[in-house]
Amino acid sequence: MKIPNLLQLIILCFISLRLTGQDHQDKVNQLFKKALSDGHVYSNLEVLCKEVGNRLSGSPGAAAAVEYTRALMSDYGFDSVWLQPVMVPNWKRGKKEILRINQSVMGSMELNALALGNAIGTGPDGIAADVIIAKDMDHLEELGKQVEAKIVFINGKADPTMYQTFRAYGGAVLQRAYGASEAAKYGARAVIIRSITQSQDDIPHTGSLRYKANMPRITAVAISTNDADMLSSLLSKGKVSAYVETHCEMKPDVLSYNVIGQINGQESDDYIAVGGHLDSWDVGEGAHDDGTGCMQGIEALRLLKETGYKPKRNLRAVMWMNEENGLAGGREYARVAESLGEKHLAAMESDRGGFLPIGFTSTGDESRQNILQSFKKYFHSWGLHDFEKPGGGADIGPLAQQGTFLVGLLPDGQRYFRYHHTPEDIFEAVDRRELEMGAAAMASMLYLIDQTGLEE
Amino acid sequence: MKIPNLLQLIILCFISLRLTGQDHQDKVNQLFKKALSDGHVYSNLEVLCKEVGNRLSGSPGAAAAVEYTRALMSDYGFDSVWLQPVMVPNWKRGKKEILRINQSVMGSMELNALALGNAIGTGPDGIAADVIIAKDMDHLEELGKQVEAKIVFINGKADPTMYQTFRAYGGAVLQRAYGASEAAKYGARAVIIRSITQSQDDIPHTGSLRYKANMPRITAVAISTNDADMLSSLLSKGKVSAYVETHCEMKPDVLSYNVIGQINGQESDDYIAVGGHLDSWDVGEGAHDDGTGCMQGIEALRLLKETGYKPKRNLRAVMWMNEENGLAGGREYARVAESLGEKHLAAMESDRGGFLPIGFTSTGDESRQNILQSFKKYFHSWGLHDFEKPGGGADIGPLAQQGTFLVGLLPDGQRYFRYHHTPEDIFEAVDRRELEMGAAAMASMLYLIDQTGLEE
Repeated sequence: MKIPNLLQLIILCFISLRLTGQDHQDKVNQLFKKALSDGHVYSNLEVLCKEVGNRLSGSPGAAAAVEYTRALMSDYGFDSVWLQPVMVPNWKRGKKEILRINQSVMGSMELNALALGNAIGTGPDGIAADVIIAKDMDHLEELGKQVEAKIVFINGKADPTMYQTFRAYGGAVLQRAYGASEAAKYGARAVIIRSITQSQDDIPHTGSLRYKANMPRITAVAISTNDADMLSSLLSKGKVSAYVETHCEMKPDVLSYNVIGQINGQESDDYIAVGGHLDSWDVGEGAHDDGTGCMQGIEALRLLKETGYKPKRNLRAVMWMNEENGLAGGREYARVAESLGEKHLAAMESDRGGFLPIGFTSTGDESRQNILQSFKKYFHSWGLHDFEKPGGGADIGPLAQQGTFLVGLLPDGQRYFRYHHTPEDIFEAVDRRELEMGAAAMASMLYLIDQTGLEE
Repeated sequence: MKIPNLLQLIILCFISLRLTGQDHQDKVNQLFKKALSDGHVYSNLEVLCKEVGNRLSGSPGAAAAVEYTRALMSDYGFDSVWLQPVMVPNWKRGKKEILRINQSVMGSMELNALALGNAIGTGPDGIAADVIIAKDMDHLEELGKQVEAKIVFINGKADPTMYQTFRAYGGAVLQRAYGASEAAKYGARAVIIRSITQSQDDIPHTGSLRYKANMPRITAVAISTNDADMLSSLLSKGKVSAYVETHCEMKPDVLSYNVIGQINGQESDDYIAVGGHLDSWDVGEGAHDDGTGCMQGIEALRLLKETGYKPKRNLRAVMWMNEENGLAGGREYARVAESLGEKHLAAMESDRGGFLPIGFTSTGDESRQNILQSFKKYFHSWGLHDFEKPGGGADIGPLAQQGTFLVGLLPDGQRYFRYHHTPEDIFEAVDRRELEMGAAAMASMLYLIDQTGLEE
């Protein structure tokens, strides 16, 4: 081959590569513009929040959410829509919790408490005992037998000075997850925890606990950060006793479903899944956690379909059931995929709220991470810039062992823990444009993964 | 000098430079952590919004805001706090606007309208006439004499598909600013404009108009985007008439003030000013526009003072008066600075709402822009990443001709135009952490500018 010919070939290759890059950019721009001018995600979320409402696994709300999202994806004309059966825990809060504290000077005072998910209840007799404070989980371990026969108040804080709010949450969440078992180990009778949030306010945050095997099971409630500060202050001045009454209980597992909608691929039997978890806590409306992720997953497929995209691979919107107190849906989805030989190239979850998207996290093969990071350029003009952090999502986690590449939508996290697991997590806390931008980002990432196969 | 000695010197310089960089990073981190754990900006904003309320130039609210911010900065022990007199326009909305539309089939219907700032009123007799639609300002020009004796409805849209919402706003705002004069040029009797927002809702957005010289002055009102769509739809089906009644009027200028607080520099007579505008529209509480900028400016100085920083230059928090309908305060501040020979190295404004800070804009000398962009590294771990865009702020603009380098805090703009110039711009629309992060970013930038003098 003569040099000029080689040069021509190189120029040709270069031009064709540039065109492909421009094509990708055009498609991404089209998806964002469609989402922002003709989006359905916000009004769909309104129905989920206002007509279905909250939807803890096993509740009538969860069943309604299954039917709503199934019908929605059918109406959109996805190639197939079905329910994947899964047995889920069935925890019920029961009658409103009572938490009364008593101190000699102040007298008696009721605090607004929320039982922790999966906790056992005290029943109508309640538990009355002196309160002892543990500053955090380390301090609880130090106290040891001193907590015997007492109600332990664990006051660990989510550090408000950290920019990475999820990391601050992670630094304190163990007191919610294991505080009850760790206190019971030394004979405590009940646990009160400070809510895991950076916010300073009057709202208790629920969330799940896990009882450790071979440990006595005791009840546990969360109180607001303001009440936690007040209780801590009272305890610094002298003896405080408390009365806790909870009516929650774990009933036998019940049948529920993951909800799946699929657009068939044209060139490959592989799959790419995208979505969020359909269950929520039994307070508020499960808007940011995780109605937004579910509605964004469906919207991502709708945007691709409505803009005429014919995917190479099978694209699935998946509403996983039971992330909040069991992860049964995520595990079952992975189990079925493996047993049917449904090879998942990638799975993407949105479960950090419907806030301004700033990037994507990922976990998996390094060369694929590099490819994902190379997509950053297509998102630049839409404000997404953070593509380097590890992560994925709880529900897609079980797919990792099949070699599936995990991707997480990364929204800004400054506001998330104001709402997380509270009665305030409602539709009105979601901004339309932020939600739409997130859906567009997910549709765009789905397109890029499908187009490239995460290969050079 | 021997080579080894030179090498030692180079290494020494290198180490000392690295230490300085680390010192800067430490200071920035300290300011952010202080703002997020011991911030005053949110509670100060609450007082401004809830106790002072809205504060259009010349109103009792504006006078109250002057006194509140003066007292606040005095209480913080800034070295000097004073009021800078400035004459400001004194526009009054008067009695609630009436906008009634009539169509043969539908009958009569009242729309929620807001007169545009600076507009003249119709008085109690109002104006009744047929309505003609102009799709945008270009279309108005095309219509020409067809608008004579009519009420012109200008329906230009802020493009919702643009990520840069301020650019979309800029693309439509001329109909608010000059629509009345352009329509009056061809004999129109009144103007109705579609609100300049990407939001689709029922809220009218006010804002100022400017009457052109030697043009008849006619009244003008804004309606919500939903009402604009409805009116446009009605007009596409046949004749619509309207009745407009406004009671607004421009009264003679009155005395008001810029409010200035200063921490004295230790090494230089130069100044760096930071702040926002104290006036707001006469609806809502002027929270994002621009209570947040004012409170962040004060907080920036407080954070520096409380962390023991002794500035090289004189640092000023400035609450400029009358940005919304005149810019008298910004002009007067620059005039006085020039007449007193107060050399302002830089001025920084926050007037894009109290949302998540994503970077800084700047305008001025290119070498200084490069220095500013080099500061990006100190903000990386706090999520700020966009340092390249031009910009500054309306109130600091008049300083530019004195060679002052202009800096603007750049928050994310996706939510701003939901609230802008509406009754919804209230304290509850502001997120505490986002506001605190913005104040910390401003304090940090102030520190870096003061330390470096914007020189290598």
